[in-house]
Amino acid sequence: MRENYLEDYFSFLRFPSVSTDNQFASNVRECAQWVSEKLAAIGLESKVVPTAGHPIVWARNEHRPGSRTVVIYGHYDVQPPDPLELWDSPPFEPVLKEGYVFARGATDNKGQILSHILGVQETMEQDHELPVNLHLVIEGEEEIGSANLGTFLSENREALKCDVAVVSDTGMIARGTPTLSYGLRGVTALEIKVTGPKMDLHSGVFGGAVANPITALAQLLATLHDRVAGFYDRVKPLENWEREAWRKLPVDGDKLVLKETGVPELFGEAGYNSVERIWARPTAEINGIGGGYQGKGTKTVIASHAMAKLTFRLVPEQDGDEILKLAKTHLRKNLPKGVTLEITDGHSGPWYLTDPHSAIGEAAQRALREAFNRDAALIREGGSIPIVSQFRSILGVETLLMGLALPDCRAHSPNENFPLENLEGGIRLNKAILQELAR
Amino acid sequence: MRENYLEDYFSFLRFPSVSTDNQFASNVRECAQWVSEKLAAIGLESKVVPTAGHPIVWARNEHRPGSRTVVIYGHYDVQPPDPLELWDSPPFEPVLKEGYVFARGATDNKGQILSHILGVQETMEQDHELPVNLHLVIEGEEEIGSANLGTFLSENREALKCDVAVVSDTGMIARGTPTLSYGLRGVTALEIKVTGPKMDLHSGVFGGAVANPITALAQLLATLHDRVAGFYDRVKPLENWEREAWRKLPVDGDKLVLKETGVPELFGEAGYNSVERIWARPTAEINGIGGGYQGKGTKTVIASHAMAKLTFRLVPEQDGDEILKLAKTHLRKNLPKGVTLEITDGHSGPWYLTDPHSAIGEAAQRALREAFNRDAALIREGGSIPIVSQFRSILGVETLLMGLALPDCRAHSPNENFPLENLEGGIRLNKAILQELAR
Repeated sequence: MRENYLEDYFSFLRFPSVSTDNQFASNVRECAQWVSEKLAAIGLESKVVPTAGHPIVWARNEHRPGSRTVVIYGHYDVQPPDPLELWDSPPFEPVLKEGYVFARGATDNKGQILSHILGVQETMEQDHELPVNLHLVIEGEEEIGSANLGTFLSENREALKCDVAVVSDTGMIARGTPTLSYGLRGVTALEIKVTGPKMDLHSGVFGGAVANPITALAQLLATLHDRVAGFYDRVKPLENWEREAWRKLPVDGDKLVLKETGVPELFGEAGYNSVERIWARPTAEINGIGGGYQGKGTKTVIASHAMAKLTFRLVPEQDGDEILKLAKTHLRKNLPKGVTLEITDGHSGPWYLTDPHSAIGEAAQRALREAFNRDAALIREGGSIPIVSQFRSILGVETLLMGLALPDCRAHSPNENFPLENLEGGIRLNKAILQELAR
Repeated sequence: MRENYLEDYFSFLRFPSVSTDNQFASNVRECAQWVSEKLAAIGLESKVVPTAGHPIVWARNEHRPGSRTVVIYGHYDVQPPDPLELWDSPPFEPVLKEGYVFARGATDNKGQILSHILGVQETMEQDHELPVNLHLVIEGEEEIGSANLGTFLSENREALKCDVAVVSDTGMIARGTPTLSYGLRGVTALEIKVTGPKMDLHSGVFGGAVANPITALAQLLATLHDRVAGFYDRVKPLENWEREAWRKLPVDGDKLVLKETGVPELFGEAGYNSVERIWARPTAEINGIGGGYQGKGTKTVIASHAMAKLTFRLVPEQDGDEILKLAKTHLRKNLPKGVTLEITDGHSGPWYLTDPHSAIGEAAQRALREAFNRDAALIREGGSIPIVSQFRSILGVETLLMGLALPDCRAHSPNENFPLENLEGGIRLNKAILQELAR
């Protein structure tokens, strides 16, 4: 790898482009400017596009009629580095140790998007042009929900007309194993508040004569276990080829879950292993609960109210609005006596599933094999990437998720890191995928 | 009422003497010092006695052989003021509005114990002596279980030798109706912590493959509804005379509960009315619950752990240790899979039942009639005053519970208040009961 690639990488990582915290707003802007100048330097037409939030960097080569058009998406913003005291070296002073670069954003997403930029740079240097019409869209709000990307895509829908989107912001199943993620779970959220007395009561003075909202909430939440009516009706069963392919992956999902989470035992829907539960089965999770006295010691109080935050992970062909409706019906129907219920809808994002054996899926598999010299693992992921659904709904294209994050990359955590071999692999991958998609 | 009584009252209320939270430890000490100085100022011999926890204020007059000896007990500590935002005025800045004083501790117990102190003050000023040998014992740990009072009573058992104890820390059945409480519920507490993964997890990355500790906790708490095995075995049925007397009280318990609490409907054990449920039937209450993300919006997290605080109100002849053991057995037996459980015992206090028609019971009824010009209501209470059982077991005396708290006093809740007419009534009551007990 050329030495100045490492200089580029370190320069990119030194910007504390933390999107969630306004005190870093000028660093975010400077980082966008740096990315845009880098793209201009390699021969692309590039600009920094203002939004209602942080700007989007948008670059393109000279387009030729009749060529395929590809959008490569990434983000230059990063998660906050806290807790700082757990970093072995400062989060915005990158260091190279035994082949790994340590810094906030090393994997998520600066290392990955930079490898695409450097791949384009090498092709431009060698061929003076790219085999496809290319858009690079690199946003600054991925870590805070990409609130302004949809507007950008809608406003520039014609200019961004394309055949496929390429994103490197997901994981490799294991070091050295190139990975194509062809499915994601969706998510839908709601918050419930159970109210009994109009204020907190002394549990001696009134206990026994009024319903306790916390008890009622616990009883209500316990009924979710008995399955919300209709919840599974639209769930698409796993394909046989998927279950077989997943069993052959170089990773034991059950062992991984036990090791990474430290849970006392495995848990989940009967008839499925951990990987199947995470990638292809829906969930109802309580993400938070609160009510009454949570401080030290005892307070003999009957709380006025108690609340819980729920999210449902959705899988094909579940519909977020329908699931919300079924959940609300279930909760209202199972509400214990003596209390009232308020339900507030939260954010939603649809699931994603594409065919890894489609023409572009096969192109992606060939590129991954070429870049890493090994057959690609075909997986789904349990999380949600709302942007993928926006590419489908606004631009009308499928997305190839070819991530380079290793399982122990510590994205969002202290000591985030990225191996140089993945930066190099990412450069090869960019060159290969653009060639493959040009065919 | 003299104007400087109100100054005394407000000075007393301004101390944030919250015993459960160590950050208020110095305020608790300062409050004890203030009480002791007040007692010395009215002519008693007073000292602040250190304990392993918060100190006890102990004062006495000059004792004469042959006179009856009375212990008046109260407490200067208060409940935490949370939630602060629901107070109309700051909890430790007392205000007088339309005859009511609003502040944390206004009723529980500063207003009530101060009325006794001021009653003693008036008698000392008029007669230069009291009709009885008096001890005032005012502790600082009543709201956290009076853990060190037993040791104090045991160590000073000889010096505290007495004929009867008087406590104003219970309720009046209605404004203007003097009330003798001859029974109390006991209480026993425990805290449970349910743990799953070793740290908070991303609900997309692991959701479905690990047990959710909040869900498990809700399921576990929901089983309490099905009655802990053996919980009711020792419960003594209500006497017929009590049920009849309670039906004749100038209060409709069911209506009172609806009005005071604002609950959407009555709730509780079948076959009992609200008064019977509160005064003579046991409960299992969840006083607090917490886990995961409780802030604004959504955080798609699977919490590492979740906790709940439980208390059981006990009635004659239930045994606190036995109930704790039954509850722990139940919780361990019903723990859902995939999580671990830790249980921490909290404080305990036994129930109390005495005869309102004994000689001292009749003296109390006469004093109440004298102070309030009306026959006393004979009731039990739903709360717990563990100290009453200690007076019986350590000092060998019965306790007269002549409380001044009104049903809508909001003890333990925001906007706690106490009417000045009860401060005045308490002063008259103190003078009357000391005369009656001297007979």
